[in-house]
Amino acid sequence: MSSPIRVLGISGSLRKASLNTQLLRAASKMMPEHGMTLEICDLSQLPMYNSDIHEQGFPAAVEEFRTRVARADALLITTPEYNGSVTGALKNALDWASRAPHNAAPGTPSPISRKPMAMASVGGRFGGLRSQIHLRQIADHMNLQTVKKPEVFVSNAPTKAFDHEGDLVDPQTIKFLKDLLGELAVITRQSQRSEKVTV
Amino acid sequence: MSSPIRVLGISGSLRKASLNTQLLRAASKMMPEHGMTLEICDLSQLPMYNSDIHEQGFPAAVEEFRTRVARADALLITTPEYNGSVTGALKNALDWASRAPHNAAPGTPSPISRKPMAMASVGGRFGGLRSQIHLRQIADHMNLQTVKKPEVFVSNAPTKAFDHEGDLVDPQTIKFLKDLLGELAVITRQSQRSEKVTV
Amino acid sequence: MSSPIRVLGISGSLRKASLNTQLLRAASKMMPEHGMTLEICDLSQLPMYNSDIHEQGFPAAVEEFRTRVARADALLITTPEYNGSVTGALKNALDWASRAPHNAAPGTPSPISRKPMAMASVGGRFGGLRSQIHLRQIADHMNLQTVKKPEVFVSNAPTKAFDHEGDLVDPQTIKFLKDLLGELAVITRQSQRSEKVTV
Amino acid sequence: MSSPIRVLGISGSLRKASLNTQLLRAASKMMPEHGMTLEICDLSQLPMYNSDIHEQGFPAAVEEFRTRVARADALLITTPEYNGSVTGALKNALDWASRAPHNAAPGTPSPISRKPMAMASVGGRFGGLRSQIHLRQIADHMNLQTVKKPEVFVSNAPTKAFDHEGDLVDPQTIKFLKDLLGELAVITRQSQRSEKVTV
Repeated sequence: MSSPIRVLGISGSLRKASLNTQLLRAASKMMPEHGMTLEICDLSQLPMYNSDIHEQGFPAAVEEFRTRVARADALLITTPEYNGSVTGALKNALDWASRAPHNAAPGTPSPISRKPMAMASVGGRFGGLRSQIHLRQIADHMNLQTVKKPEVFVSNAPTKAFDHEGDLVDPQTIKFLKDLLGELAVITRQSQRSEKVTV
Repeated sequence: MSSPIRVLGISGSLRKASLNTQLLRAASKMMPEHGMTLEICDLSQLPMYNSDIHEQGFPAAVEEFRTRVARADALLITTPEYNGSVTGALKNALDWASRAPHNAAPGTPSPISRKPMAMASVGGRFGGLRSQIHLRQIADHMNLQTVKKPEVFVSNAPTKAFDHEGDLVDPQTIKFLKDLLGELAVITRQSQRSEKVTV
Repeated sequence: MSSPIRVLGISGSLRKASLNTQLLRAASKMMPEHGMTLEICDLSQLPMYNSDIHEQGFPAAVEEFRTRVARADALLITTPEYNGSVTGALKNALDWASRAPHNAAPGTPSPISRKPMAMASVGGRFGGLRSQIHLRQIADHMNLQTVKKPEVFVSNAPTKAFDHEGDLVDPQTIKFLKDLLGELAVITRQSQRSEKVTV
Repeated sequence: MSSPIRVLGISGSLRKASLNTQLLRAASKMMPEHGMTLEICDLSQLPMYNSDIHEQGFPAAVEEFRTRVARADALLITTPEYNGSVTGALKNALDWASRAPHNAAPGTPSPISRKPMAMASVGGRFGGLRSQIHLRQIADHMNLQTVKKPEVFVSNAPTKAFDHEGDLVDPQTIKFLKDLLGELAVITRQSQRSEKVTV
């Protein structure tokens, strides 16, 4: 129970100064107290999913992303809300992660299946509530183990959640984010125990 | 009222032999009787949305897509269901279409706002019902005028909806698709009339 | 075009001092300027829907509710959010309104089908956003003509939207509610015109 | 680990010959092999939720329902689909179960919170898929532990799932239902173990 939980951070925004990516960085600082470490990945190199490409084997950037997902003990996904849903970039990445290799034996699990996951969002009038509703349904479909509470929504309009350096400074958001990470640690540890019991 | 309705066909699948793209082609053949013409666009050249890119002006492929959307009288969107939602490629295209140009005056409408739209899907156990649920919510958010009934779901597993040439042959699906186009024609004509009244 | 639009107000809350019912009363005061009048109905007398009862004919309270829906030109529904959805009382009322009489000829429309409708909500952290998401889907299923924008969400915690007398005093909410009623008037007039054209 | 899992069966339909209630009875027969027993409750006596009533104490029928929920180790909910959502009767019952007693200390858990739950549905064109989508969101909101897979949808139009006696006879549905109960047993046992660890 003492090896750290390796968390893969995925931001749905490709923008350099993205507040959702900043939220991952803020989470990173809180992780040591939960026995967690964070690695943030970059979705901008992933080609658009196309099953014609899939059949020829995963492109290198996809293979690397899938390996990172497979190695992670848990996922932390942050996402803005575009038109009441997740971004195309995030959906595309999740679709690549949810596929078995072409010609794999039936029932071969995807790298992402059953992975513990927590989500948070910065955006819009309701802090990304609608994007989280869609993401939760997508995650259920991929059979992830998703943290239910707390729900972390950060409004960006007009927000004081982040300061001018892009650091998360709002005490309530900080508390929610810490609680979210605590819950993610709990379900990840439970998941690891139940795998041992099963084996 | 006699000029044809120009419909832009958008398939959420990038696969060459996509049944969703085939569904657009099947719709194309039914269109003359409703006074409609179809042009199918290709989403594979669109880069992933990134607001850093947006701020530098729309890339050429995006500009062309937005122009096609703007010129169309109505949209026909077909989409497979990936992980209980629309594809990343489709979401990405819709996000590009829903933006005003950078530095546009506040309130500048996007090319897609208020556009009449009908949707159909081929896929999965329920013919893409879950992807249509998400697409309908996304469309509401973009303020499209979406056809409500009939709902056209085509199961691909194991389907006889299409023959070996990829032609739509299932009589019930053909009927539903015709009814869908009829409804799209109705709301498009209504929308054109009410714009004239407003002006 | 000069006869007033008769709006039926439906509150999803049965509580006497319900803020959602207060929201209907606030709307009532704004209606004359849009050429509308409001009648508020009481859902507390409706029995729980049971198809065994339905087959014996609609109970008196149900019959009366259905008649009020049928006579109305448009609906204004306000609802709190209970457990992320609409209340059982509201869902029950809508289910009664959506049925054809037992032994009616196939295709007999329900009193509520195609009715113009606007919704608003008071409740919870996000002003009832989740209940409106469900209500919108239910309304689509019943084939209502639902106002899309503006979306009116009133937070009740800690709110200054209502004063101690229960009167709506928040200027922004008042503005949104007026705009909502304006849109409802527009789609109701359009719907009435297109029925005349069709006839 | 050897005491039987007491499952409370809740049918969203009040109809006597309800196929959703029949589905509970079919599940009951499969339960011994999973170490489970079933008790079916009747929602027809519950008054419509009203917070004015709530404040005066739970009515007797509500109190009895809440006690049954509290005593159960797990829930099995079956529901028809009315207008693309759960029935008013089911939503009403869940709302009563999700409340703390009036004047309870803040943080007092409801009888239903964290309860393991599995759902299935008979109905409509897609076997109740839309009602399960709403029920899953409602359950997430009440913090239930909901079985994710398999998803059990039984079409009632035109179905051979049940025979003339109302017995479930379709082999595939029987298999799915058994797998669902197996998963419910697993998460219930896990939940019981993790409570012991926590204590």
